[in-house]
Amino acid sequence: MSNAPLRLERLRHFVTGLAEVLERHDDEAYVLDEGKRLLGELIRHDDWLPEAFAQPDPDRYQQFLLHADSRQRFSVVCFVWAPGQTTPVHDHRVWGLIGMLRGEEVSQNYALTAEGLRPDGSPIRLRPGDVEAVSPRIGDIHQVSNALGDRVSISIHVYGANIGAVRRATYQPDGTEKPFISGYSNDVLPNIWDQSKEGGRA
Amino acid sequence: MSNAPLRLERLRHFVTGLAEVLERHDDEAYVLDEGKRLLGELIRHDDWLPEAFAQPDPDRYQQFLLHADSRQRFSVVCFVWAPGQTTPVHDHRVWGLIGMLRGEEVSQNYALTAEGLRPDGSPIRLRPGDVEAVSPRIGDIHQVSNALGDRVSISIHVYGANIGAVRRATYQPDGTEKPFISGYSNDVLPNIWDQSKEGGRA
Ligand SMILES: [Fe+3]
Ligand SMILES: [Fe+3]
Ligand SMILES: [Mg+2]
Repeated sequence: MSNAPLRLERLRHFVTGLAEVLERHDDEAYVLDEGKRLLGELIRHDDWLPEAFAQPDPDRYQQFLLHADSRQRFSVVCFVWAPGQTTPVHDHRVWGLIGMLRGEEVSQNYALTAEGLRPDGSPIRLRPGDVEAVSPRIGDIHQVSNALGDRVSISIHVYGANIGAVRRATYQPDGTEKPFISGYSNDVLPNIWDQSKEGGRA
Repeated sequence: MSNAPLRLERLRHFVTGLAEVLERHDDEAYVLDEGKRLLGELIRHDDWLPEAFAQPDPDRYQQFLLHADSRQRFSVVCFVWAPGQTTPVHDHRVWGLIGMLRGEEVSQNYALTAEGLRPDGSPIRLRPGDVEAVSPRIGDIHQVSNALGDRVSISIHVYGANIGAVRRATYQPDGTEKPFISGYSNDVLPNIWDQSKEGGRA
């Protein structure tokens, strides 16, 4: 890493921009379109994420909350994957966006059938700059993994709720649901709000 | 301090409650009334502030951001005063609430006249549980100090903007304004959003 100051204002602009979108519209398709555009803009640069929120853990993938909206209308979470780490098959119950920042991730969608889970389409490989969406409307069950065996991968997830408060489920191969609330790996969030230290940057 | 878990949900309920008020109303008098009620409820208990945001600094009073709204409609800041510390005479340019959590604070209001600053009313002494308001409408210039010579005092301030982004002013005795943006003492905020760790608490 260079000693250039972190461009924390990029994350602030994403947060304020998405909040404006949600203020004007609650149509999910519109929110996902605008959210994809804003998240794509955020992850086009990799100069804003503080190191503390980019640290892998050998025991499990990390979910660092970066921002939660005051009304819990949305949350922004940084997922950090050590090589080989993978989620269980899980759902979200709200809309979600996944933007790839570093490394590569693979996401497999699933459909729930009378016979249990079956893969729905081919695995999707996400590379830096790519954005994917999930929701109960467009397909909500998937499994996500670090696609790289030798490197940390990092993706930025955005959800249409405080995802640390959503009662949702993981799935067994036979389709059995197990309830869970995902929680966060971090006790502190980055302070992206101090404009006194940014000189001329808005 | 005991080893009882921090009641972080109190701060979360304050944030979500104030956001709901701002969603429904933008009349300042109403917002201040409801804000006073909610802030009074928050500071009625002293079991929720993480120690990291209660640390005084010998060189200057500390301003720890606890939460900023996604649209920068409000911010919640913890002021920590070592004995003898005091602000310059300053304004806010937005509405503000001050709720006393620990120790005591003294606030002196000022009026700007052709002859310079003059004290406006008697000093107001704040004790735990007390809430005061400022705004350009009701009186916006004051100086605040730790009222205790031998103890740390802590107050919770709420502003109708991200106060770390507001261009405002300090005042010389002759009334001369000096522009400033106040900034924050902290690089990280408390994570008040993880409900997976709270057991039954909503
Ligand atoms: Fe997911
Ligand atoms: Fe003040
Ligand atoms: Mg908000």
